Amino acid sequence: MKLACVQFSPALLDREETVRRLEPLLARCEGAELIVLPELCNSGYNFADHRAAWEGAERLAGSPFLEYLTEQCGRLHCEIVTGLNERAGDRLYNSAVLVSRRGVEGVYRKLHLFMNEKDCFMPGDLGLPVFARPYGVIGMQVCFDWAMYEGWRVLALKGAALICHPSCLVLPGKAQRAIPVYAMTNRMFIATANRIGTEGELTFTGSSLVADPRGEIVARASETGEEVLTVEVDLGEARDKAVTARNDAFADRRPSVYGELCAEE
Amino acid sequence: MKLACVQFSPALLDREETVRRLEPLLARCEGAELIVLPELCNSGYNFADHRAAWEGAERLAGSPFLEYLTEQCGRLHCEIVTGLNERAGDRLYNSAVLVSRRGVEGVYRKLHLFMNEKDCFMPGDLGLPVFARPYGVIGMQVCFDWAMYEGWRVLALKGAALICHPSCLVLPGKAQRAIPVYAMTNRMFIATANRIGTEGELTFTGSSLVADPRGEIVARASETGEEVLTVEVDLGEARDKAVTARNDAFADRRPSVYGELCAEE
Repeated sequence: MKLACVQFSPALLDREETVRRLEPLLARCEGAELIVLPELCNSGYNFADHRAAWEGAERLAGSPFLEYLTEQCGRLHCEIVTGLNERAGDRLYNSAVLVSRRGVEGVYRKLHLFMNEKDCFMPGDLGLPVFARPYGVIGMQVCFDWAMYEGWRVLALKGAALICHPSCLVLPGKAQRAIPVYAMTNRMFIATANRIGTEGELTFTGSSLVADPRGEIVARASETGEEVLTVEVDLGEARDKAVTARNDAFADRRPSVYGELCAEE
Repeated sequence: MKLACVQFSPALLDREETVRRLEPLLARCEGAELIVLPELCNSGYNFADHRAAWEGAERLAGSPFLEYLTEQCGRLHCEIVTGLNERAGDRLYNSAVLVSRRGVEGVYRKLHLFMNEKDCFMPGDLGLPVFARPYGVIGMQVCFDWAMYEGWRVLALKGAALICHPSCLVLPGKAQRAIPVYAMTNRMFIATANRIGTEGELTFTGSSLVADPRGEIVARASETGEEVLTVEVDLGEARDKAVTARNDAFADRRPSVYGELCAEE
């Protein structure tokens, strides 16, 4: 399949401007079956406070941003994973949403919040779901989730061949070093769509990438440019968990001695 | 503390020759509080069959190799972690052993066996122990254990400030990319002592390294040379699990959703 990551700068609290920026970039994704967009793509990232985050949030049902993406999926014959500032009742979540031409197909809410996100968003309450799509099984992680290997491993064990990773990374080079190692040790694909630009004191680090089951970076964007990464990948490769003729990334595990990983404090 | 890794080529099934090679290298470690040696250091690695592995094995009690290292610990005022082809009853284990001037202080038996090791050794049956030493808390992992993040994470959660990693790595660049990421995401030190040389069809990849809690490689050996890596490290740094002012590598974990990691098939 053809996979695309869009690296750009959403406009803070200006959805119409964000859509205006997205339009030509999505057009350049034509032919891709799946497109990955950055974190909090509908609202921008660096809110002054909870009130500002609330203003930029949308409910899943009736979200103008998701309706726009749904239309684009129909027009481009693709699906899209986007970061979404999601309002649910009186709570906000930093979510990743999978959209097809029929609308919302899956939601993940960021489990591990970064810095001041803790003032705006609730920690994710939907666990680590995977979604069987025509092109393969996918999971989602958002930005700072990169720091916790556990989520990636759980998604891989649940059958994810590809993890889509909408991001607003600000720590230079850290996630970008970890992601290929997570792909390699789980024999899966990872598509990190990071944003660029500056909001207040935060400068985002670009360098979006797609890593393959060997841990190779098969596509990588620049640090600062607006860019569409497209790459042909065979998600079927992620079914093969062989590390060597006699080693398997999953079967060689020893879960009986991993108990601490699941222990509550 | 001063930490040392010895990168060299143990002699296959010739312990006396191995000790002859080690002697000048250990002398170059003078001043180190802890020295890490490669995997299966007492016997070499690439056995023709189980019988050959058995010939090279030693019981912990009365092991001439461990007795030699115990003497060296007294002479050099240090402790040593070595890979050991360990015989216990009628079983062999690919072990890592911590030795002080008083003798054996701790044992770890490799959990995840690589390739033909499965014909010679039993999978480890001692779990993932940590050892409180005067210089800090340490854990041990052996070579291909690098492929399973779970063990490193468990040791970190149990308080290991440093993981000693005796190795005979043969897959170029894979472990050496993963190890700094494991150090970074667990905010701990890792010392990988890899071997060099060729045994049969296997060529070992050298590039021994020490990684720090920021994921930086603070010392790195060449791919092919006999080498002593020495580096000054402050294991106290590994007590600080802060990733940012508001993020913590441990406290931000969400173990309630990591259940699959501990589930038996």
